[in-house]
Amino acid sequence: MRMVDLIHKKRVGEALTEEEITFIIGEYTAGHVPDYQMSAFLMATFLNGMTDEETSFLTLAMAGSGEMIDLSAIAGVKVDKHSTGGVGDKVSLIVAPVVASLGIPVAKMSGRGLGHTGGTLDKLESIPGFQIELSKEAFIEAVNTIKIAIVGQSGNLAPADKKIYALRDVTATVDSIPLIASSIMSKKIASGAEAIVLDVKIGSGAFMKTVEDARVLARTMVDIGTRLNRKTIAMITDMDQPLGREIGNANEIRESIEVLRGTGDKELTEVAISVAAYMAVLGKAFATFDEAHDAVKGIIAQGQALETLRRFIASQGGDARVVDQPELLPTAQFHYEVIAGQTGFVGEIHAEQIGIAAMVLGAGRAKKEDQIDYAVGLTLNKKIGDPVQAGESICTIHANRTDVSEAQAMILDAYKIVPSQPAPKQLIYDVIE
Amino acid sequence: MRMVDLIHKKRVGEALTEEEITFIIGEYTAGHVPDYQMSAFLMATFLNGMTDEETSFLTLAMAGSGEMIDLSAIAGVKVDKHSTGGVGDKVSLIVAPVVASLGIPVAKMSGRGLGHTGGTLDKLESIPGFQIELSKEAFIEAVNTIKIAIVGQSGNLAPADKKIYALRDVTATVDSIPLIASSIMSKKIASGAEAIVLDVKIGSGAFMKTVEDARVLARTMVDIGTRLNRKTIAMITDMDQPLGREIGNANEIRESIEVLRGTGDKELTEVAISVAAYMAVLGKAFATFDEAHDAVKGIIAQGQALETLRRFIASQGGDARVVDQPELLPTAQFHYEVIAGQTGFVGEIHAEQIGIAAMVLGAGRAKKEDQIDYAVGLTLNKKIGDPVQAGESICTIHANRTDVSEAQAMILDAYKIVPSQPAPKQLIYDVIE
Repeated sequence: MRMVDLIHKKRVGEALTEEEITFIIGEYTAGHVPDYQMSAFLMATFLNGMTDEETSFLTLAMAGSGEMIDLSAIAGVKVDKHSTGGVGDKVSLIVAPVVASLGIPVAKMSGRGLGHTGGTLDKLESIPGFQIELSKEAFIEAVNTIKIAIVGQSGNLAPADKKIYALRDVTATVDSIPLIASSIMSKKIASGAEAIVLDVKIGSGAFMKTVEDARVLARTMVDIGTRLNRKTIAMITDMDQPLGREIGNANEIRESIEVLRGTGDKELTEVAISVAAYMAVLGKAFATFDEAHDAVKGIIAQGQALETLRRFIASQGGDARVVDQPELLPTAQFHYEVIAGQTGFVGEIHAEQIGIAAMVLGAGRAKKEDQIDYAVGLTLNKKIGDPVQAGESICTIHANRTDVSEAQAMILDAYKIVPSQPAPKQLIYDVIE
Repeated sequence: MRMVDLIHKKRVGEALTEEEITFIIGEYTAGHVPDYQMSAFLMATFLNGMTDEETSFLTLAMAGSGEMIDLSAIAGVKVDKHSTGGVGDKVSLIVAPVVASLGIPVAKMSGRGLGHTGGTLDKLESIPGFQIELSKEAFIEAVNTIKIAIVGQSGNLAPADKKIYALRDVTATVDSIPLIASSIMSKKIASGAEAIVLDVKIGSGAFMKTVEDARVLARTMVDIGTRLNRKTIAMITDMDQPLGREIGNANEIRESIEVLRGTGDKELTEVAISVAAYMAVLGKAFATFDEAHDAVKGIIAQGQALETLRRFIASQGGDARVVDQPELLPTAQFHYEVIAGQTGFVGEIHAEQIGIAAMVLGAGRAKKEDQIDYAVGLTLNKKIGDPVQAGESICTIHANRTDVSEAQAMILDAYKIVPSQPAPKQLIYDVIE
């Protein structure tokens, strides 16, 4: 088999066999196929597409390019959850202790964030003492004992995906459905997931801008899951404004605790409960979504989810007192208000701009090497539909610097104040299973 | 300007500006744009195409990526000729002395061949003593004095094209009309051509298989010429069987001399006369093709073209006696006949297979480093339409080895003997100007 012939086959629009795709991924990972051939292949794939079958072959080949985590020593269905990413998305932090409280094992491997804020790992590390590195044995032991552990991804998890992603980034081949879908699913499969709930975000803070695009991606990933024998459900949820009110790291932990206490942002709570309920269904704890939904609400109302969070933090060396005394989390030195210039209603909040403003303050990484400041971030005092008076604060900036003019200007620009109250936003657009 | 954005622009099917194409070629030649970005761009170009305007920008950018030969010290219109390549194509060797005899300056830079036989340079070097390296001054002096010189291409001629071609070869992006057209035209323009006659070959021994494809390529190149102010004429000629009867190096020189003597293969003579006539028109020696055609025939009949050939060979240090004593050219040690197994007519001669048989004997290079044996090659004793008796020789193999079974099998396989005489082949399918 020669790579040039396989590029040609994809170029003329033919479907590749499993053997051919396995060859491409294997040889590329081993360094025998050079970047310049892979990028030509990626562009041909971008423009000519892949069948669902090819996409699942690609997923499996990328998953198998490195370590395949063996979670068989953990009892129960290992359900994972993945979000395509958005601003203020702290759903994983909430659903993990919730589903663990329902007896479903949460054996989660997370990544660090590149972008607006840190990833789940970074947010957890804002808790004093929290350790994201556990030995394999300690990880499995923790899940078997308290049903929950969240650790850093193995460096050797789907290395083909890592290498291909870096290449896509510089060759204008990022936003291809089969490439996105296989990239996400390969990492989930390599990290041992037996069932997966996907949260596909749409809107100004998401990669996908329309429900139609999101549906195609969601269906592709559900199809991969089905073909590879991992039951998968994809929700399509709103990211046209940030999710919840906190954007940052420590403050997102704080907001997650509020949701688990039952006093959190209504919309964030609703999305998190639905995600948790689908995970509970896939985890075989309940037969129907409605039963699971009720159970999730109950587990929060009875304080069990909060208790699981305390145990989880303590089990990974963190200071569990933060759950009841959130002031023990890192706090910024300075706080600035962003003041509305006019009276009306919040019509739009451009989520991506809000995210970039948070990154500019130090809450996220522009480059892999950047250091995150856990304490900084934003609190959105007004969200879409809220009435606003000129002179009122729409957003609070938490910073460790005195010049926040750049972030301030971005936030003001991200908010659109309109004369009449807009219709409420839909929160969950579709669920594909 | 960022390469990734330009790849994206081409990926979504937009046309690039002259500035953008110049940036891509300049940065790639300088090594600032890596191969993996260029190959993604080439695949996007392959699949989304280029406008005629973009193709001419690309041609100019590649021509300008290295040395631009200045032929202004040579009087007259510098007309060049290019063939897209075929088996037994020795037309350049014939037309050069013909048009020089008509007073049109032939200041030709040629390349070495990779493939079936050597290139024009290799064939000339089969003449004892012939030098293909002249100083720039000697080159111009020769053209101004005897109207003809053929030298090796400067190593720095259109280096972007060289680099891109190597990349296309391994990324399945060779057979793209804008990329082929710009590659050919960039080298002609860099080597100082003011007018160009293109010989686009079609058939079993050519890159283009159909008249339609050849027309698109021909029109694209003529369009580039027009846009860049180089009057260009493209002929579409047959390469469904080898051109003429000799395939090799020294034997192709011998056959060219026969044509210049007026006793050569009829079809080869016809193609060469037409190419020379179009060159003479572009060189402004005649107003119409018919006048030029008559003049070319006359110059051959009167022996002037042969005399120019003698002077040309002598001027570059070669033994001009070969013109009258072709036996002074290298000759192979062994000669083998390929015998027809059945009686009938030659229905097909698969030109590419014949070419590969010649290469296997040592007449061409499979790799750049291979040495050519000038003496070896093939003589086709039968061509399409010729009657054949079982037991008759269809082809003579000239070899410097005793085992020619591989070549023999290929030749037998290339010839199709059919029961009834096929209709005569069309020689010139179209002329686009």
